[in-house]
Amino acid sequence: MDKFVIGVDLGGTFIKAGVVDSFGNILLEDSIPTEAEKGPEHVVIQISKVVRKLSEEFDFGEIFGVGIGAPGQVDPAGAVKYPPNFPGWEVVYLAQEVQRETNIKTVVDNDANVAAIGEAKFGAGREHPNFIMVTLGTGIGGGIIIDGKIYRGPTGGAGEIGHVSINFEGPKCNCGNYGCVESYVGQRYLSAWVAKELENNPNSKIIELVNGDLSKIEPYIISLAAEQGDEFAINVWKKAGFYVGVMLASVMNLFDINVAIVGGGVAKAGKVLFDAMNQTVKSRALKPIAEKAIVIPSQLGNRAGILGAGALAFEELNQTTT
Amino acid sequence: MDKFVIGVDLGGTFIKAGVVDSFGNILLEDSIPTEAEKGPEHVVIQISKVVRKLSEEFDFGEIFGVGIGAPGQVDPAGAVKYPPNFPGWEVVYLAQEVQRETNIKTVVDNDANVAAIGEAKFGAGREHPNFIMVTLGTGIGGGIIIDGKIYRGPTGGAGEIGHVSINFEGPKCNCGNYGCVESYVGQRYLSAWVAKELENNPNSKIIELVNGDLSKIEPYIISLAAEQGDEFAINVWKKAGFYVGVMLASVMNLFDINVAIVGGGVAKAGKVLFDAMNQTVKSRALKPIAEKAIVIPSQLGNRAGILGAGALAFEELNQTTT
Repeated sequence: MDKFVIGVDLGGTFIKAGVVDSFGNILLEDSIPTEAEKGPEHVVIQISKVVRKLSEEFDFGEIFGVGIGAPGQVDPAGAVKYPPNFPGWEVVYLAQEVQRETNIKTVVDNDANVAAIGEAKFGAGREHPNFIMVTLGTGIGGGIIIDGKIYRGPTGGAGEIGHVSINFEGPKCNCGNYGCVESYVGQRYLSAWVAKELENNPNSKIIELVNGDLSKIEPYIISLAAEQGDEFAINVWKKAGFYVGVMLASVMNLFDINVAIVGGGVAKAGKVLFDAMNQTVKSRALKPIAEKAIVIPSQLGNRAGILGAGALAFEELNQTTT
Repeated sequence: MDKFVIGVDLGGTFIKAGVVDSFGNILLEDSIPTEAEKGPEHVVIQISKVVRKLSEEFDFGEIFGVGIGAPGQVDPAGAVKYPPNFPGWEVVYLAQEVQRETNIKTVVDNDANVAAIGEAKFGAGREHPNFIMVTLGTGIGGGIIIDGKIYRGPTGGAGEIGHVSINFEGPKCNCGNYGCVESYVGQRYLSAWVAKELENNPNSKIIELVNGDLSKIEPYIISLAAEQGDEFAINVWKKAGFYVGVMLASVMNLFDINVAIVGGGVAKAGKVLFDAMNQTVKSRALKPIAEKAIVIPSQLGNRAGILGAGALAFEELNQTTT
């Protein structure tokens, strides 16, 4: 008999969940508002509600586990700590709480690790036992897969590739450091940087696309302009790819890993961005790494959250069932 | 009965070797010229000669293994590749060759890993199951100890902390990249940088100490001047500590490790250097890491080469003997 799990993608606005099989198919899907403003107890109720609904509706077999991808820091014991945009949330043992409500074994990890585990099991990482996962979004998240397993580090905080400083005199990062790659390519930083640079590029199509309101610049707008051949927009992605590539060369050197898989909203910028990342790691990583270095796109796209959380459940809970 | 190994420190000029017990004592010591210019076969003979001599002279018990710390790249199968300053040396299976000559089980690793393993077993790492080893010398070497074991990576090349770029527009590094921490603090780069800065600091004691010959600047000269209260020399170590600290903050964030152990010739600069490294990691690493971050000196000093190679032999060969 095949095995099934439920993957839960806990977002600030919506909780998305789906029944996932061991091949990475989503067989049934649902979502529910997070209503984070009502506090953590309510979020536990919302997650449990959608999990119970899916498990009741699903007829093909037994759901043996639930995996949750959560924002913020998650420690090895499953404590989800101070997730951004979740008011009143301090430290919550989310997996234990959901398990108590649903009677289904539940595990939780942070969303960057979950993305890496998902890619390893169901996506571009299937052929690569060792890779660096990069998620380019509001922040820059990461996960290191070594020999098919996520490297969590002694306290569960490993893989913070967004906070590798690529320039000790660079812009101040939200974390307190300077020149973190996130302070160049994180969504808000990137938008602010583009808005500023547009002062010297008044003919860029980006200005037209936002009707002159530079506060509306987002990565997809820059991509739209780039697709229409806007030189300035193309250069933005070249530069962004260069910054990420500089970070990746250092991380590849440290871990002796020559594959990076890049996902997240910003990664949709496509070929220009990936070409720049590839050129940079090839010219900057140490020779034995550089020769075989590749930076490739995530394969899971919009399904990364649910599939990653499902993969987490398969990885962590599979051995305890028969 | 206690167990003994021979640790071999393969240098460009001398081969140093010693009988090491399981507590980290060197019970008998010898050295022999490397004569690297006579080619790899000759180097194998020289190593075997000193190993045989020590094992014949040692009366307290049986030598069950030999560990070698070698410069250059060493792959997991024991191939020592293109070590710098060893003419005519391409790829040599050094451990196998020495074992054939001496009939004693032999293992080899690169000298940065060996330094980390030595510190873990016999030095400052005994109390720290997870730490980042830094050797500040001609180059900047590194080793990552996770849960008491060295992290070698898929092809044995991991831990290249010297080639983390701390400034994408920094000086060109020997490796081809820009702004590697080695291109700031590696011995030759550091000396050249100091020589250049002295143009604007004509009253520094360094100039007196080298009798005006700026090509003679070496780290110990800068330290001597700093000890005598020379402001410029003190600032050199502050700056060097800052650069290393910037790199360490990134590496700590990536591995979720909050301890760094620093050895090698340049590390002798002492308190000013260590204060700067500590201040930098505390102000730049992510909060959960920074709170507990410490940068401490190596405890093995001049014995690091022999003791590290001995520790390697204990780690790798112990289980195969009784």
